[in-house]
Amino acid sequence: MKRILTAVVLIPLVLLVVFKAPLWLFTAVCGLFAVLAASEYLSLAKNHDPNVARWPGTLLVAFLFATLALSLQIVGGDWLVGVIFCLPFIYPFFLLAMGLRLSEPKSALLSASLGSLVLPYIVFPLAALIGIRELRHGWFYLLWLFAMVWSGDIFAYYVGKNFGKRLLAPRISPKKTWEGTIASVLGAALVSVLLVYFAPRISSSLGSLHLLPGREVTPSFLPVEGDHLLVAAAIAILINILAQIGDLVESVIKRGAGVKDSGSLLPGHGGILDRIDALLFAAPAALLLFSLIRWVPPSATRYID
Amino acid sequence: MKRILTAVVLIPLVLLVVFKAPLWLFTAVCGLFAVLAASEYLSLAKNHDPNVARWPGTLLVAFLFATLALSLQIVGGDWLVGVIFCLPFIYPFFLLAMGLRLSEPKSALLSASLGSLVLPYIVFPLAALIGIRELRHGWFYLLWLFAMVWSGDIFAYYVGKNFGKRLLAPRISPKKTWEGTIASVLGAALVSVLLVYFAPRISSSLGSLHLLPGREVTPSFLPVEGDHLLVAAAIAILINILAQIGDLVESVIKRGAGVKDSGSLLPGHGGILDRIDALLFAAPAALLLFSLIRWVPPSATRYID
Repeated sequence: MKRILTAVVLIPLVLLVVFKAPLWLFTAVCGLFAVLAASEYLSLAKNHDPNVARWPGTLLVAFLFATLALSLQIVGGDWLVGVIFCLPFIYPFFLLAMGLRLSEPKSALLSASLGSLVLPYIVFPLAALIGIRELRHGWFYLLWLFAMVWSGDIFAYYVGKNFGKRLLAPRISPKKTWEGTIASVLGAALVSVLLVYFAPRISSSLGSLHLLPGREVTPSFLPVEGDHLLVAAAIAILINILAQIGDLVESVIKRGAGVKDSGSLLPGHGGILDRIDALLFAAPAALLLFSLIRWVPPSATRYID
Repeated sequence: MKRILTAVVLIPLVLLVVFKAPLWLFTAVCGLFAVLAASEYLSLAKNHDPNVARWPGTLLVAFLFATLALSLQIVGGDWLVGVIFCLPFIYPFFLLAMGLRLSEPKSALLSASLGSLVLPYIVFPLAALIGIRELRHGWFYLLWLFAMVWSGDIFAYYVGKNFGKRLLAPRISPKKTWEGTIASVLGAALVSVLLVYFAPRISSSLGSLHLLPGREVTPSFLPVEGDHLLVAAAIAILINILAQIGDLVESVIKRGAGVKDSGSLLPGHGGILDRIDALLFAAPAALLLFSLIRWVPPSATRYID
């Protein structure tokens, strides 16, 4: 019940941010999620090696997204922004150097590599969401991504509950079944096909509700000739599988840390990391795929606004 | 003796590659070092967690540098090259997903983060060398970087041997002294000042020996007004300190792995990683600094060829 109430509050909020927020605000919201997830991840990593530093990583993530949000608003200072975006490259060296202080030599490399993983595992996927929103019709691609990642959960839950027999990964996630997993993939494909099919209508409805910027109302979403719906289904299958792997990966990290929930921020939902684990794997692939379907021949032209 | 012989063969070879090799060959040589160093690093990391995968990382490094070297020669296929350069971002997710197969849940995160660190720790610094060579007068900046990193070693060795009393980091590197360390920093600063002071003469000598491309013969190396030599000394101090930290970091990684040499490729020199450990920390900082001294006001203009 708590779970449903939280969802009822959160989902419209998320959609409003996706549709209406200016880019800097969207970036700030992604940054908030990134900071909370990074802090939870680093806590879990600390259970793998006690010398993982939690604060430097969390601060770095906050600083990077704050700089990104500000740089979208403020003109100039480009070279300073350039230097700040070098920080993720320098950070692993900082952690390695800090490891020299430790009395246990094994811990120097372990804590530095666990701490560095916050960048590819948390920062990059949430930055990828910003990249997706920056695409033309970015709001639609985000909506589609969320649908591919989360709609499958409902199918998985009901099919798994009623027909689930073969366990998927009993050591990692004892309740998941192959039946539920396959239902999730197929469900996501179905929802995607519907979403892409009705995209023009969704677009004009949202437009008439003033939920979209004017120039965003347009019927052509997939610049691939013919086979729209087949492409949509294929993308959904791939993204949904990655999302489910992301879910399992976070489970195994928690299991390795000897912990049940990644945090307790959202009532009934566990931590933020528990909510976005699937997205962490799906978002980078989605950015790549959404960018590629604009590149691929025959059109072979990149979008220029 | 073996050590000196190896050096006598290697140093002229390195300088020839720095001065004369076309960019694709220079890239290929950096790639060779990267592949060997990556393979040694992953062996050391395997001693931290037995499930670190050695071959995928080594292959990825080889593939990335091969693509880079080829893309410098071949025109077109830009989008394919773009996709390949997404691989470093995707690789941590691949390793995390592979971790799902392991029976020990702690090892999933540990092996993935240790394996991912090959990218910032090995690939990025060796790619930074290519970036430095791509700068205007890149050959000079590379020469300078090598001088800052390695000239200090000679000072450290003789001062440390004769005057060394206070141990720097007995747990990590039992022979290093504070006296040797400071001698290294000051020696590198001295060599740098001389190198920058004589840069025009070095340039024209090398030019008349046909060791440089014609357009590279020019007397202005540091686009900073006045205080050339002070800037050179300051850069050398910073880079040399980073280089020595890099040396210690590799020592602590070996100590954590319970190993004396990182490998045995070069007679008398240990492994490749033992040779380039200092460079791994120095090269990224050098690229940043060398780029910045071109940016900083008053000139505030980026170099355009």
